[in-house]
Amino acid sequence: MTTMEQLGERAKKSARSLATAGSRKDRALLAIADALTERCEEILAANRLDAENGEKNGMTRSLLDRLTLSEARVKEMAEGVRQVAALPDPVGIVLSGSVRPNGLKLTKVSVPLGVIGIIFEARPNVTSDAAALCLKAGNAVILRGGKEAMHSNKAITSVMRRAIESAGLPADSVQLIEDMRRESAVELMSLSRYLDVLIPRGGAGLIRTVVENARVPVIETGTGNCHVYVDELADLSMAANIIYNAKTDRPSVCNALETVLVHAAVAEKALPLIKEKLDKKQVELRGCERTREILGDSVVPATEEDYEIEFLDYILAVRVVESLEEALEHIATYSSGHSECIVTEGYEQAQRFTDGVDSAAVYVNASTRFTDGGEFGLGAEIGISTQKLHARGPMGLNDLTSTKYIVRGTGQIR
Amino acid sequence: MTTMEQLGERAKKSARSLATAGSRKDRALLAIADALTERCEEILAANRLDAENGEKNGMTRSLLDRLTLSEARVKEMAEGVRQVAALPDPVGIVLSGSVRPNGLKLTKVSVPLGVIGIIFEARPNVTSDAAALCLKAGNAVILRGGKEAMHSNKAITSVMRRAIESAGLPADSVQLIEDMRRESAVELMSLSRYLDVLIPRGGAGLIRTVVENARVPVIETGTGNCHVYVDELADLSMAANIIYNAKTDRPSVCNALETVLVHAAVAEKALPLIKEKLDKKQVELRGCERTREILGDSVVPATEEDYEIEFLDYILAVRVVESLEEALEHIATYSSGHSECIVTEGYEQAQRFTDGVDSAAVYVNASTRFTDGGEFGLGAEIGISTQKLHARGPMGLNDLTSTKYIVRGTGQIR
Repeated sequence: MTTMEQLGERAKKSARSLATAGSRKDRALLAIADALTERCEEILAANRLDAENGEKNGMTRSLLDRLTLSEARVKEMAEGVRQVAALPDPVGIVLSGSVRPNGLKLTKVSVPLGVIGIIFEARPNVTSDAAALCLKAGNAVILRGGKEAMHSNKAITSVMRRAIESAGLPADSVQLIEDMRRESAVELMSLSRYLDVLIPRGGAGLIRTVVENARVPVIETGTGNCHVYVDELADLSMAANIIYNAKTDRPSVCNALETVLVHAAVAEKALPLIKEKLDKKQVELRGCERTREILGDSVVPATEEDYEIEFLDYILAVRVVESLEEALEHIATYSSGHSECIVTEGYEQAQRFTDGVDSAAVYVNASTRFTDGGEFGLGAEIGISTQKLHARGPMGLNDLTSTKYIVRGTGQIR
Repeated sequence: MTTMEQLGERAKKSARSLATAGSRKDRALLAIADALTERCEEILAANRLDAENGEKNGMTRSLLDRLTLSEARVKEMAEGVRQVAALPDPVGIVLSGSVRPNGLKLTKVSVPLGVIGIIFEARPNVTSDAAALCLKAGNAVILRGGKEAMHSNKAITSVMRRAIESAGLPADSVQLIEDMRRESAVELMSLSRYLDVLIPRGGAGLIRTVVENARVPVIETGTGNCHVYVDELADLSMAANIIYNAKTDRPSVCNALETVLVHAAVAEKALPLIKEKLDKKQVELRGCERTREILGDSVVPATEEDYEIEFLDYILAVRVVESLEEALEHIATYSSGHSECIVTEGYEQAQRFTDGVDSAAVYVNASTRFTDGGEFGLGAEIGISTQKLHARGPMGLNDLTSTKYIVRGTGQIR
């Protein structure tokens, strides 16, 4: 069996070729897209094995749904890879430059990060999505998917590797870890000699494990305890629409709403409007005392924990606040720094909220559901960073690059 | 005694004020500069205690020199803080923006990182330098200096805190850890709830410890195994000048030269020129077999380790290579990714080298000693990053910021 060290070495070697591969990267991506379609049957056969095992092992409906591929889904994967190929190359962009007083000509240019590790769960489409983005930005990638999707991931990776080679780039640009013991994850997280960054994609548990155990730089993604604050100057029907959309459009994703804060001055009018909307989807409300006074006993009393966690479900915490300042305090205390929104018609209130909230995306009068690479115009997304280092919010191709200074002289010494 | 948790909480609270402090940050910095000069005697008295302890405990000459302050050095510290105040505010800069097809107005702006931890060794001037940069970028800072400089650091921090308060900002914007047990460093490295980034400043040992133990994002700084490659098309006298400067100007710093690679076609001419220069400062050469054939037995045989380590001393590794490609291979294998230089008159050679070397700074015909925030025009420098995430190379004020998206809508839902 290949050791982790060997995987790292091969990835680093491949990364050196990829760094100057130019348009061959796009040729490789188009070859991958074609191969995914052409070898669809092979991929689906492998996926059926995974699905059968999943059913046998009592996998939940929603997990099985994420795991299972169809011809249409494989086509979507291929289409996704084509879209990545069509994006502009993020490498080689001159970001800044100057001539220093001593005549040195300084240029700061974008370069690939190098070797990227991706740890993900049972969604085999992540394999091609993530690998395509890494490749486009000139990075070699080491993938470690969930063991539930092992056959699918092997088939997809094998298709990709052959296509990459056909385009004249090293097959080892994309490698899959086949050793599914826990130890191999730990080894990957410690591969500091080869790995430039590790990106976990998946649930909060996976991300916590990686952040706590990694010895290489990690980009933390995805935890979204998002808030909507209904200001005293809000258009209440707009507020109810935004809350309904942010909570119920897709409750399982990170940009879904988890807590509503309502200014006391409008709570009596706003809360019934909001509840009426949410009742259509049987959203469970967990409210503060004042909320329960207004909406009645159908509202579950909110605990401290209800403000802290991501429900990722048809559940919403509700709290009445005395002021915008109190809303900012609540958000500073409980938010995971993903996306927060104020609904207001007040200019000053909008300013104070956007200045005072420290999150990746701060909205005025729009649904938190827009925090997404596609919606932000980034073309494609490798994840949504909730940390402040390197990248924050939806991460596109540019966030898979680093920089280097090129300094041209004529013999200058210091 | 204050717990680490409390320090973190206070820092986070202060960071919220600093984020929107605007020009009050500059007022605080100017007040710090004035106070450092005015209360110089107090700082020097504390520093004398540290120096006496250092002498008693047999501290080496060079460490004592780094530790000891004088009136002139304190004035320099004050001047440094004034220079930081004069730089443009890195916060609130609009980095990009667009109007999305649905009418959402998207703006990406720079914001402070939040809370920065700095771990450093026995140089008390780092206390004011680092704190001033963090403050200017709107960040709260938690400092942990070496215990050898404890009295000095306490005095300097106390001066800064009072000055910050006098400018109407929270004193806890700058905090010093006074608990010097090893446990307190470990606690700081695990303070993920409050710390947005940890920056170690010091020797390789300190940096390794932090990288291996931290549970918060770290920016790795300072290891520089730098190379100069003398190409077959080099101006050999320029090469000798650059090598002499890069090796002997200040051998103890990270941008000093450690290994010279010489193309075989010019080795017989180049090596004696280089040696002649370096002999003036009694630089010890450790060479490959070919180097020793040319320069004779005064050259120590180089071991594998000589190519791997930073000497930080009047020692230089020398190797003859058969081609530019072999030089690139050597650098890819041994470099720490800090600064590398090619000396050549060949256009194509210069291109191949700048494309092929993956380091923070890649030079053509100039000394590696220029890798420095001041020399690059960044105004001031918090360190030189040798990692690829977030910042690479000399880090200025901009690298102490993160970003957020502000999204202005009119009720958009998804």
